[in-house]
Amino acid sequence: MFMHNKRLQYTVRVAEPNPRLACMMLEQFGGADGELAAAMRYFTQGLGEIDPGRKDLLLDIATEELSHLEVIGSIVAMLNKGVKAQLAEGALEEAELYNMIGASSSSAKEALLFGGGPSLTDSAGVPWTAAYIDSRGDPTCDLRSNIAAESRAKVVYERLINITDDPGVKEALGFLMTREIAHQKSFEKALYAIEDNFPSGKLPGIAAYANLYVNSSQGEGDVEGPWNSGAQWDRIDDLEKTMPIDDGDGTASVKLSAADEAVATKLALRTASDRSTDPETGVDLGAGPGAGLISGEDMGAAKDIGEAIKMAEDL
Amino acid sequence: MFMHNKRLQYTVRVAEPNPRLACMMLEQFGGADGELAAAMRYFTQGLGEIDPGRKDLLLDIATEELSHLEVIGSIVAMLNKGVKAQLAEGALEEAELYNMIGASSSSAKEALLFGGGPSLTDSAGVPWTAAYIDSRGDPTCDLRSNIAAESRAKVVYERLINITDDPGVKEALGFLMTREIAHQKSFEKALYAIEDNFPSGKLPGIAAYANLYVNSSQGEGDVEGPWNSGAQWDRIDDLEKTMPIDDGDGTASVKLSAADEAVATKLALRTASDRSTDPETGVDLGAGPGAGLISGEDMGAAKDIGEAIKMAEDL
Amino acid sequence: MFMHNKRLQYTVRVAEPNPRLACMMLEQFGGADGELAAAMRYFTQGLGEIDPGRKDLLLDIATEELSHLEVIGSIVAMLNKGVKAQLAEGALEEAELYNMIGASSSSAKEALLFGGGPSLTDSAGVPWTAAYIDSRGDPTCDLRSNIAAESRAKVVYERLINITDDPGVKEALGFLMTREIAHQKSFEKALYAIEDNFPSGKLPGIAAYANLYVNSSQGEGDVEGPWNSGAQWDRIDDLEKTMPIDDGDGTASVKLSAADEAVATKLALRTASDRSTDPETGVDLGAGPGAGLISGEDMGAAKDIGEAIKMAEDL
Amino acid sequence: MFMHNKRLQYTVRVAEPNPRLACMMLEQFGGADGELAAAMRYFTQGLGEIDPGRKDLLLDIATEELSHLEVIGSIVAMLNKGVKAQLAEGALEEAELYNMIGASSSSAKEALLFGGGPSLTDSAGVPWTAAYIDSRGDPTCDLRSNIAAESRAKVVYERLINITDDPGVKEALGFLMTREIAHQKSFEKALYAIEDNFPSGKLPGIAAYANLYVNSSQGEGDVEGPWNSGAQWDRIDDLEKTMPIDDGDGTASVKLSAADEAVATKLALRTASDRSTDPETGVDLGAGPGAGLISGEDMGAAKDIGEAIKMAEDL
Amino acid sequence: MFMHNKRLQYTVRVAEPNPRLACMMLEQFGGADGELAAAMRYFTQGLGEIDPGRKDLLLDIATEELSHLEVIGSIVAMLNKGVKAQLAEGALEEAELYNMIGASSSSAKEALLFGGGPSLTDSAGVPWTAAYIDSRGDPTCDLRSNIAAESRAKVVYERLINITDDPGVKEALGFLMTREIAHQKSFEKALYAIEDNFPSGKLPGIAAYANLYVNSSQGEGDVEGPWNSGAQWDRIDDLEKTMPIDDGDGTASVKLSAADEAVATKLALRTASDRSTDPETGVDLGAGPGAGLISGEDMGAAKDIGEAIKMAEDL
Amino acid sequence: MFMHNKRLQYTVRVAEPNPRLACMMLEQFGGADGELAAAMRYFTQGLGEIDPGRKDLLLDIATEELSHLEVIGSIVAMLNKGVKAQLAEGALEEAELYNMIGASSSSAKEALLFGGGPSLTDSAGVPWTAAYIDSRGDPTCDLRSNIAAESRAKVVYERLINITDDPGVKEALGFLMTREIAHQKSFEKALYAIEDNFPSGKLPGIAAYANLYVNSSQGEGDVEGPWNSGAQWDRIDDLEKTMPIDDGDGTASVKLSAADEAVATKLALRTASDRSTDPETGVDLGAGPGAGLISGEDMGAAKDIGEAIKMAEDL
Repeated sequence: MFMHNKRLQYTVRVAEPNPRLACMMLEQFGGADGELAAAMRYFTQGLGEIDPGRKDLLLDIATEELSHLEVIGSIVAMLNKGVKAQLAEGALEEAELYNMIGASSSSAKEALLFGGGPSLTDSAGVPWTAAYIDSRGDPTCDLRSNIAAESRAKVVYERLINITDDPGVKEALGFLMTREIAHQKSFEKALYAIEDNFPSGKLPGIAAYANLYVNSSQGEGDVEGPWNSGAQWDRIDDLEKTMPIDDGDGTASVKLSAADEAVATKLALRTASDRSTDPETGVDLGAGPGAGLISGEDMGAAKDIGEAIKMAEDL
Repeated sequence: MFMHNKRLQYTVRVAEPNPRLACMMLEQFGGADGELAAAMRYFTQGLGEIDPGRKDLLLDIATEELSHLEVIGSIVAMLNKGVKAQLAEGALEEAELYNMIGASSSSAKEALLFGGGPSLTDSAGVPWTAAYIDSRGDPTCDLRSNIAAESRAKVVYERLINITDDPGVKEALGFLMTREIAHQKSFEKALYAIEDNFPSGKLPGIAAYANLYVNSSQGEGDVEGPWNSGAQWDRIDDLEKTMPIDDGDGTASVKLSAADEAVATKLALRTASDRSTDPETGVDLGAGPGAGLISGEDMGAAKDIGEAIKMAEDL
Repeated sequence: MFMHNKRLQYTVRVAEPNPRLACMMLEQFGGADGELAAAMRYFTQGLGEIDPGRKDLLLDIATEELSHLEVIGSIVAMLNKGVKAQLAEGALEEAELYNMIGASSSSAKEALLFGGGPSLTDSAGVPWTAAYIDSRGDPTCDLRSNIAAESRAKVVYERLINITDDPGVKEALGFLMTREIAHQKSFEKALYAIEDNFPSGKLPGIAAYANLYVNSSQGEGDVEGPWNSGAQWDRIDDLEKTMPIDDGDGTASVKLSAADEAVATKLALRTASDRSTDPETGVDLGAGPGAGLISGEDMGAAKDIGEAIKMAEDL
Repeated sequence: MFMHNKRLQYTVRVAEPNPRLACMMLEQFGGADGELAAAMRYFTQGLGEIDPGRKDLLLDIATEELSHLEVIGSIVAMLNKGVKAQLAEGALEEAELYNMIGASSSSAKEALLFGGGPSLTDSAGVPWTAAYIDSRGDPTCDLRSNIAAESRAKVVYERLINITDDPGVKEALGFLMTREIAHQKSFEKALYAIEDNFPSGKLPGIAAYANLYVNSSQGEGDVEGPWNSGAQWDRIDDLEKTMPIDDGDGTASVKLSAADEAVATKLALRTASDRSTDPETGVDLGAGPGAGLISGEDMGAAKDIGEAIKMAEDL
Repeated sequence: MFMHNKRLQYTVRVAEPNPRLACMMLEQFGGADGELAAAMRYFTQGLGEIDPGRKDLLLDIATEELSHLEVIGSIVAMLNKGVKAQLAEGALEEAELYNMIGASSSSAKEALLFGGGPSLTDSAGVPWTAAYIDSRGDPTCDLRSNIAAESRAKVVYERLINITDDPGVKEALGFLMTREIAHQKSFEKALYAIEDNFPSGKLPGIAAYANLYVNSSQGEGDVEGPWNSGAQWDRIDDLEKTMPIDDGDGTASVKLSAADEAVATKLALRTASDRSTDPETGVDLGAGPGAGLISGEDMGAAKDIGEAIKMAEDL
Repeated sequence: MFMHNKRLQYTVRVAEPNPRLACMMLEQFGGADGELAAAMRYFTQGLGEIDPGRKDLLLDIATEELSHLEVIGSIVAMLNKGVKAQLAEGALEEAELYNMIGASSSSAKEALLFGGGPSLTDSAGVPWTAAYIDSRGDPTCDLRSNIAAESRAKVVYERLINITDDPGVKEALGFLMTREIAHQKSFEKALYAIEDNFPSGKLPGIAAYANLYVNSSQGEGDVEGPWNSGAQWDRIDDLEKTMPIDDGDGTASVKLSAADEAVATKLALRTASDRSTDPETGVDLGAGPGAGLISGEDMGAAKDIGEAIKMAEDL
């Protein structure tokens, strides 16, 4: 069960209102790596977890992330406190309000739709979606996802610190950033406290494919490194050998029943493409003399983009 | 630049059509941890990457994931080959087609909207969204996200293997699952080939908060482990001490200009709540005699859910 | 700041696993009227609220809704406990697992993607989105939205109660349903504790349009009621009078600068439609002899749907 | 059946083009509380409604909202008429067009993707989604949702009026705003014309929980008001009493079959966390000398955010 | 199977960084008509296609579109190369970085969340969704969709060319734009190489409805053209004749079983609307003296929007 | 302005309730090619259109599509009429209701969330999104998109006809399907009534790239047809020639200022990958003896998927 105290985990002292900065801060309120995503990632894992230690850990951090959601949301509320009042009271001239809310399209939405209240959108005004949450119900996956998520959140806070010179905001962001570092450390400990944590799940891999490195992208810029070279790796440079990599023929097939087969043939015939003719098309009907480019005639096409623009100007 | 050969990276041999299984397979075609998400995660990172080694690695694996997208999509196409033809030709009785497509709501959508072609939706019919992609433009974050993503994809393949007894499908899935293991290993190598990879980004944390463990969830089930105990950690059990954790007062404030302050006060007064009266409300107008539960009277409320159901039956 | 205790607000006793019922329960976990939507609706309002009484109320109920999120999520976890283990361990035959997870497409996704853990999706597997949250930063709007939201959540719980015969689940749902009733009453009190709460906002309406009822839908079924008849209303039945309702001409116009006007004219001419000819079209090129229906010829078109089906069978 | 007349319900006279203002107006065209949401909320309710009076009411207002969608869309089209022509004809220098479309990111999208035509997005460019529609098929819920929706739409129009000084736009918005007031009144009448409208649905609540107020958020700022105090309410301040509120033990459990139990135990053992050791982790491998913060050593960590920034500058 | 070469299909030479222009370019990277949408539209069709010629065509163009995705993504990466480094290194003063990233809300998101890497969002920061893909598994539909999609992508490129004066970007866009023209021509050929391609699918239409033109929108502005006039068309101007167009009564009905009928009646009675009374409503409780507009009294309502604003100022 | 008559455009006679079929019908109510998408596609185009003939055409068909939305929605309402009443009244035993609503996950959502009312979701329960609408503000694009959309809608109706044996539903669907055919013909006429309609927009293409066919997908299955062969086409089979296709070097570059260059170099050095060592990784820490597959040792890896499953069973 959750309880709440109206004091924040970290004091928020904002120097002056700034609705555009408020929208940037929303990235960590309702954004992909924001605090709601963090809280819900760990909370959903915690509910499904059966190991007592991990369950406790997940609920501890989930709860703390909710407190962080409150801190970042309070920053947003303070940065918007001026615009909220001015717009609600219609106290300024229209042009002043228009400029105040219109610093960006998300600040316009923040003001017009949300009245300056903290909204669960990111810095571009996109609503939060649970598609951000990658809990999968397997602890070795989930802990890796948590480690990655904490490292991402750390970096987004660092970026916010880099663009803000309000000292109170900077301090609070510094606290929030540091907590992500601590959380990452806890999740690392929990991952390696599972004795056999790689590969995730239970099935081992197939030996023939587990140490292959397929050099799918070639040409200048091909580089060797510990991820594709050394004793561990069998690297395939001749891609013909992987078409297919098994000893089949590289096609896809299915055994249809006779009835299905007959109908599939009927469909194929009905919609077959006649490759022997060069049909007149809608394009032939519609291309004007200036457009050129059709049926093999290049008359009217441009040599380069500059000429194309000039030709268009003449229309 | 991309090139393509019509042979698959792994031969696909499907034993018989099964539109419901096809929809389950879509989880790895257009789902959150599917091959498009993998390919696009690494491809977007590769385009922005400035380290030549990592760029090559990312483009190698992105390209291979596209080949895997083709393998899993071909499995879906084969599993749907019967229903596609039968529905297009209207060859079966209506009731038979209704049953064939209606095994689940996503198989109905697969047939009705997509005509049995592989669709970029997950196993529940939800369209793929780039919200699944967590590329952040910092290599130590991105490699951790890739490691986590590979471990998730490995597990989802394992689950698909566990529910399928078609040997050809099972083999192809085994290949795809194993490649995720290999990719995870490559990304691990690339992460640790960055000498100073923790914490992500450049800013160090604030010492006072970096080794704290906040025991936010308490009560029975509180457990010690290496993630919250030992020399590394200062654990806070008395949460009063973190309200706030800094030496402020735990409130949120902003310095408003005099003009903003005046308008904010006006807004506060205009919308103030009168706490001294007990107003009549819409509920008082609308509650019927059977509903009870209002204005302090419990008449009509039920003792338990069983009684509530009986009372409702009498309406 | 949030705190947590691992005991639930209401004890959850599930009689036996049932992954399909679990997915139905998700409607109140990650669905449009579920507990996350409730918690986040009130929490975002509370952060932005300036009236102390309403702020306290909103944070009280937001926090309780998080506790309810935990209760309903625990029900989901228990209902999925069997399938989670069976799938993770691959302990059953493939066909058995296939049937166990495949009761619906959302139960397949729950198992394949989420491993049976509670997911922030609704009963059809659609991820939760903050588009569900209608907080607008005006207390008389927000309280009305909260009242409406509580009444909706109450009804969804009632529907879940009606389809479940597991006594422990039924009891917990009964508790959750009743709390929505109590919350609605609190929000009603808070709305009417604002002296002047209608219309929302600050601007009065325009007298000429405020008591009009426009009878836009006519024909059989036109009915009088207190919403369109009586002293309060001026009803318009002759819709010609509202085309437009003001004394203009009902068109839309804008004053363009001369330069814009010239360019707009150029665009209009370039893309003008020649209404004087009957052009040959792509349809004329493509219609086969069986399709009929083009260029005025009805040859081949069907009299009714039965004949159409027969004609199609002959193709 | 719907019919249409090309005259608008209200004449639209726009003083001059303004693509940025156009995007703000989109909030009521394709936004959460815009006219499409209104029209579709009532239309879907009207189709499912069985009470003749409410059905007529819902279809009347749904139809009028479509006429309002046309008015607001026409405002957008007029405000964009200049940019649409200039961009289509490529008539201005690139830098001028770049500035004309780039006032905000949603105005860029409006021009680049939609060519200046009215798009069903909100003011931040987010596509409209039916997730905004809260029709639930129960009249006492739906009417409350409609009342709330009308009050929200009223306020968003008021905000748009406050930021616009184009007199023709302001007048049209004043008309649209007033109609929301009138619609709210109609829906209120319809709600209270249902004799027994609270609580929604049919099941009464459980007496023991219906008048409780759970004081979940405590600390400074706790306030009494008619929503939590007075004869009607039993307030719980000692939250221990609600862990759980019933007479169980506050845990979640399910009765597993013996077979499920055995497999669940196997899973628990396989993935158990070893809490007795302090494992080396990925963080230990990756932390450089400057990062500090690991394994209990604080060397290198910063005292505050200012020092952290300085340390980062030295990297 | 896919292969990749690190050389691009078209050389990208960007004159100078410009994060705001980068976001506009994203429209063709992660936008609705962007290259990912194109590639995935043709790739999903290609996987499901059974005609060898069309399959080859679709895979050819799908693969080329991936190469175009790489070109446009590389443009974005180059335009962001400065901001990416500056933000990651925190090398500029906060105010400079704030301005550099804050040109629009999507450029803020691009920097804060994606670190300047190419993101699969459109120019407003909205994530790509597979809802953009309209593959339907019927070749005559799909080819028409492809033709339309190519024409849309051509126009969006043209718009981007019109707003950019960077010569290297302009050239690359000119190449990409021209390829859409070529692709449209190929898809037109493929459509008309299917002998009987209209109407799509197999069922012919019903003769009585196939040549009707229903003049649903009337009033000034009614125009004749080849789409509604001439020998081919039967135009209905008297819409009464289409209510309904069949010889039924224009109602909707269903045959319920006796049991369903009884319950439906019970529901209707329980929720019936009492149209005979004029109930007091929540609005009556809440309207303050200044709001007017209720219960027939217009006192306090404004004559026009100007007066309304004045009245609001007095509150 | 819109008007409405409560008679439908086509009489709806449903033989018996069927909530599962209702959900399938939703594909054309709230699905990607459904009637709302059609109505809104043409309505948004009509509002922005400047050619009087096309404007009239678009508003005519938009209005008719709204009438079709009403017809298909009425079919859904009738098919759900039984379940709606049974669930609202709780009139059946729980198990019966559970089965009645649970035929698919979208039928469960339809009942639980929407109470059986028509919802703007598709057949899988996914909410309608304006991402389906491809209006672009250029008439030659938009008309092509409309043609394609009508052909898609025709085919989806055909599929619904093929799976339904309710004669009344089948007839109404036949009417709706036929109207799509008629609409396609009108849009074709309007497209070809624009004299110069190809390519869309105004800029001609670059001659060198307009007639090229890039054979990106090679290998067995390469096929010639009128889309890649013949006088019109220059086909490139040797893809090396297109890396790049221009006379540059196929790389991407940007001219950075000296300041940016310095910072970019700093970033590159700080995050450089050390390719000379083979670092220990998290995988090395975590791989148990059974997992094998790491650091070059294959001990424990499986030969094939069958052996992998056996090995997993032993864990």
